[in-house]
Amino acid sequence: MVYINENFKLLKRNYLFAEVANRVKKYKEAHPEARIIRLGIGDVTEPLTDSVIKELENAVKEMSKRETFQGYPPYEGYEFLRKAISDFDFKRRGIDISPNEIYISTGAKEDTANFQELFSIDCKVAIPDPVYPVYVDSNVMAGRSGVAKDKRYSKFVYLECKEENNFKPELPSEKVDIIYLCFPNNPTGQVLTKVELKKWVDYAIENNAIILYDAAYEAYVREEGIPKSIYEIEGAKKVAVEFRSLSKTAGFTGTRCAYTIIPQELVVYDKEKNKYPLGELWLRRQSTKFNGVAYIIQKGAAAVFTEKGQQEVNKLISYYLENAKIIYDTIRNLGLKVYGGVNSPYIWFKVPEKFDSWSFFDYLLNECQIVSTPGEGFGQNGEGFIRLSAFGNREDILEATERLKKLNI
Amino acid sequence: MVYINENFKLLKRNYLFAEVANRVKKYKEAHPEARIIRLGIGDVTEPLTDSVIKELENAVKEMSKRETFQGYPPYEGYEFLRKAISDFDFKRRGIDISPNEIYISTGAKEDTANFQELFSIDCKVAIPDPVYPVYVDSNVMAGRSGVAKDKRYSKFVYLECKEENNFKPELPSEKVDIIYLCFPNNPTGQVLTKVELKKWVDYAIENNAIILYDAAYEAYVREEGIPKSIYEIEGAKKVAVEFRSLSKTAGFTGTRCAYTIIPQELVVYDKEKNKYPLGELWLRRQSTKFNGVAYIIQKGAAAVFTEKGQQEVNKLISYYLENAKIIYDTIRNLGLKVYGGVNSPYIWFKVPEKFDSWSFFDYLLNECQIVSTPGEGFGQNGEGFIRLSAFGNREDILEATERLKKLNI
Repeated sequence: MVYINENFKLLKRNYLFAEVANRVKKYKEAHPEARIIRLGIGDVTEPLTDSVIKELENAVKEMSKRETFQGYPPYEGYEFLRKAISDFDFKRRGIDISPNEIYISTGAKEDTANFQELFSIDCKVAIPDPVYPVYVDSNVMAGRSGVAKDKRYSKFVYLECKEENNFKPELPSEKVDIIYLCFPNNPTGQVLTKVELKKWVDYAIENNAIILYDAAYEAYVREEGIPKSIYEIEGAKKVAVEFRSLSKTAGFTGTRCAYTIIPQELVVYDKEKNKYPLGELWLRRQSTKFNGVAYIIQKGAAAVFTEKGQQEVNKLISYYLENAKIIYDTIRNLGLKVYGGVNSPYIWFKVPEKFDSWSFFDYLLNECQIVSTPGEGFGQNGEGFIRLSAFGNREDILEATERLKKLNI
Repeated sequence: MVYINENFKLLKRNYLFAEVANRVKKYKEAHPEARIIRLGIGDVTEPLTDSVIKELENAVKEMSKRETFQGYPPYEGYEFLRKAISDFDFKRRGIDISPNEIYISTGAKEDTANFQELFSIDCKVAIPDPVYPVYVDSNVMAGRSGVAKDKRYSKFVYLECKEENNFKPELPSEKVDIIYLCFPNNPTGQVLTKVELKKWVDYAIENNAIILYDAAYEAYVREEGIPKSIYEIEGAKKVAVEFRSLSKTAGFTGTRCAYTIIPQELVVYDKEKNKYPLGELWLRRQSTKFNGVAYIIQKGAAAVFTEKGQQEVNKLISYYLENAKIIYDTIRNLGLKVYGGVNSPYIWFKVPEKFDSWSFFDYLLNECQIVSTPGEGFGQNGEGFIRLSAFGNREDILEATERLKKLNI
């Protein structure tokens, strides 16, 4: 008899954003006239930039002619894209990451979810709280979580992020093997300085641990001293994998292209102490379970890594960062405690005392027709907080802030 | 200390097609002037059809304007595409598969590799031999294989496909839980009749097993009585998941769009006999580890499911089927035993006695500059056989057959 993977029973019923979508759908059915403003899932709203559109068009034309038609893409991505990323994201910033350390994929969500497959089920996993739920759920499905108890899993080591520590995690007191970090952080919008991040790299080196570093929001870093890549930290190439994405950088949430960096010097071991270059393990996984990213999409992505493309996306990011400032100021003026919103598209704030995060989510939906994300969905420490995303066009953001200003809280 | 997933050590060093690519690369480096003809990996060569190109262009335009820009796609795919598939692939052929039983993805490779995640590690897996290596390797990585011994894994149940049974597997004598079937078959090109396929559906119903049915080549079926979908068989909706793809149907190998059918009546159980609709489990997996297929690509895909789109792809498939016949006849005229090539883009033939499949692969590469796929890469029963694919433009196919005719074997 075919039985299900029992680990699925340990999951919460719905993936967080699926639950948010369900509640919004219900509200919309009951209020078909409502003009809902979506500051929830963190989905971009501005069109793809001119350079990207032009290259997408060129690539579609190429696919229409036998001479330039492209079949299966390379599992690891086209050289033209890997080289462009190596130049613009790394070499120009003084970081030596070569094209063959870059692996193209359809999303940082996909890669952060799949990467744990390379490691033993016995590995001890450190999970920040609050956290992007994908790191948690993918490890639950794989069988690393232990049982669920009081909204936490028995085998995970939680890295507490609270107001007391400014939502910056402390090193674990217990030894861990796999550490998920995300900076600029989703959901809190907080960042680490180089000095703060170096503590984690040093910990990983000393403890033979690996850091899975989600840098999906690096493009939003505008302040000096805040790293845009973990490889700005000495020693990181020995212990860190970095996940980067065009979703929030270049408006690719609906176009799907991301990339993962696995330095050549990053090696891992089996229990007999045999050595494995981690990049080779990942390529073995990818070549078996993945057939690459569409040629058209990779061509469009490469346009981001040109002089003109960089100017365009910088403008796009400035636009969203201005949105973030507008929302941040509005929430602060309501008398609520706010985090993030600088070097990050996320604003994280404390709900008024009479609410919890789901009831304030409902309140914002009912009173302001604003979709937010309840902090509780990101973990126990997110209870009492709400995440707003600064993606949206300016008119919507201004309209949302007008509605928020009228709240009597 | 972070340890690797030890199951990876049980894998062959390289994914089959990665090994083929390596050997071809080496040959090309040594013979830069050689005009290599690729009949190996089964990659299409003809451009995307007019309808698809037009819709891709329209979609790119939509992505360039705020009013029509699209962010994150639905995890399960856009309704417009699911509805089009439901109509053209099923309802018009008298099969009742509704849009909400259809899940869009980037590839049948991805879905056939990932689907096993939904099931217990203890499930007994039946694997045809020869077989598309993805079914094997994904289960090895997950820990269902047991140890490797004499090119086989101790815990799999092998479904023997040999000349004696015309490469059509017999029902397993031992009870199994998960059965992988692929018809028209990759690599042998053989097909099952409805009567033959019904035996498998009946087996699955009686034994509470599930059939993972890879129908990636269904568009090549032109003969009456050969099913294009397992749902043509009574009872299949209770026990079968079907994987379909635009790769070979519409030239999408480099454009990446496929779809998986999970009928609503297909339920599975946990060990306490609780019931789970399989579609819900898959959506839970997908919404956690996948963020959907690019809007542009889904729009292009939908163009296939129109009157004009169907005419275009039928013409494309006829073209490749004519190629198949040309290759089939050439190989037969060499005095070799040939299978497939009808209702299938694959030709499967027995190598001359003094060769094995890898040495004949090398021989074809050296003597004819033709890339093939050695049967041994598909399993023990593939030893002594070669797969050729009929994808290629006519001039190349004719040139390849001229080269083959000159062989002295």
